[in-house]
Amino acid sequence: MKYAVLGTGMVGHSLASKLIALGHEVRMGARNPNSKEASKWADENGSLAGHGEFSAVSAWAERVIFAVNGARILDVADAVTNQAVAGKTVIDVTNPLDMSRGMPPTLIPEMSNTTSAGEALQTRLPDAQVVKTLNTMNHEIMVNPGQVPGSHDVFVCGDHETAKNETIEMLGEFGWTEPVDLGPLAAARGTEGMMPFWLRMWSVAGNANFNYKIVRS
Amino acid sequence: MKYAVLGTGMVGHSLASKLIALGHEVRMGARNPNSKEASKWADENGSLAGHGEFSAVSAWAERVIFAVNGARILDVADAVTNQAVAGKTVIDVTNPLDMSRGMPPTLIPEMSNTTSAGEALQTRLPDAQVVKTLNTMNHEIMVNPGQVPGSHDVFVCGDHETAKNETIEMLGEFGWTEPVDLGPLAAARGTEGMMPFWLRMWSVAGNANFNYKIVRS
Repeated sequence: MKYAVLGTGMVGHSLASKLIALGHEVRMGARNPNSKEASKWADENGSLAGHGEFSAVSAWAERVIFAVNGARILDVADAVTNQAVAGKTVIDVTNPLDMSRGMPPTLIPEMSNTTSAGEALQTRLPDAQVVKTLNTMNHEIMVNPGQVPGSHDVFVCGDHETAKNETIEMLGEFGWTEPVDLGPLAAARGTEGMMPFWLRMWSVAGNANFNYKIVRS
Repeated sequence: MKYAVLGTGMVGHSLASKLIALGHEVRMGARNPNSKEASKWADENGSLAGHGEFSAVSAWAERVIFAVNGARILDVADAVTNQAVAGKTVIDVTNPLDMSRGMPPTLIPEMSNTTSAGEALQTRLPDAQVVKTLNTMNHEIMVNPGQVPGSHDVFVCGDHETAKNETIEMLGEFGWTEPVDLGPLAAARGTEGMMPFWLRMWSVAGNANFNYKIVRS
């Protein structure tokens, strides 16, 4: 499968490298076509790896992953263009965090509570098939659930069943055997809304090596 | 111990009845001193049970539990008065939900994200010692953690150590052996912020008999 991973931070690196390890073709996307981070990653990850500008890698890919700063997600969507992702599964792993008020960050009001970053992305890219997932945990756990011992959960939601199934397939390759399907993309209001809790938990745990499990009878 | 449980809904009933079963003296508080729900509860719960108006039961009690509609919490605080709870542990189990927009409810902007219902309550009752807990689960699980099989978590936060310890003691009587201490009351922004997720999870689970566990290594 051809994946574009948009974002050159830790999340983008973890996802892109895992997809390469799984045998996929991956291009890391950045605003700058000559991004040092993206070209360095591509150089280090063999013949299946490449990089390029947001819209170019998105147009090339079969599946597109948004792993950018959540506060910038709509700017990145504009750079990608609706045309480049029309009919494609777009996997959004971002959180709409406002880092400008100090620590811990808060949610961006325009992208939370009565809406979400996932829904805002879908509105900005109307012909994409947006699925929200993986945004409730540290990037290392995203691609290696075994890093946290025992059973714990990943959540998925979206309005397009085929795209959701493709995402669940990818999650399965990562090691997530039973993703919890929360239904429509609007459920991203719930999973993105867990980030303020996550940040508090991170603070008291002293590390990010934890995850949620929904315990039920 | 003398507990005032403010609120005559399902949450108030569960907490008040459990505290009676544990041998505490409990008065259920309502806005109306002749509340039918509160007097019925008192009649059915023996000699340790009573009821009365918000401020009267709060002034009588050693510990006060807010189990009211989260949207009304500040109105109730005004009825209680700061004087009635000065120096006392005030346990807040509410969530600031706006039911006016249809289902699922959203968070009330004035009491979420950059603040919380717990913090708003502390500000309105400055001499109380507010502790937030139990607001992340169904009322039956609050007082009977064994209703969900296996291990799962309750969270506690507050700015007053003695009050937090008293709350942890009460949680222990309910069966919560290892509450997760999230630190200051501002962490209520995190736990109250989980409610939109909870509501989505409730919808797909088909029942409220589930709870969060934080899995860590």
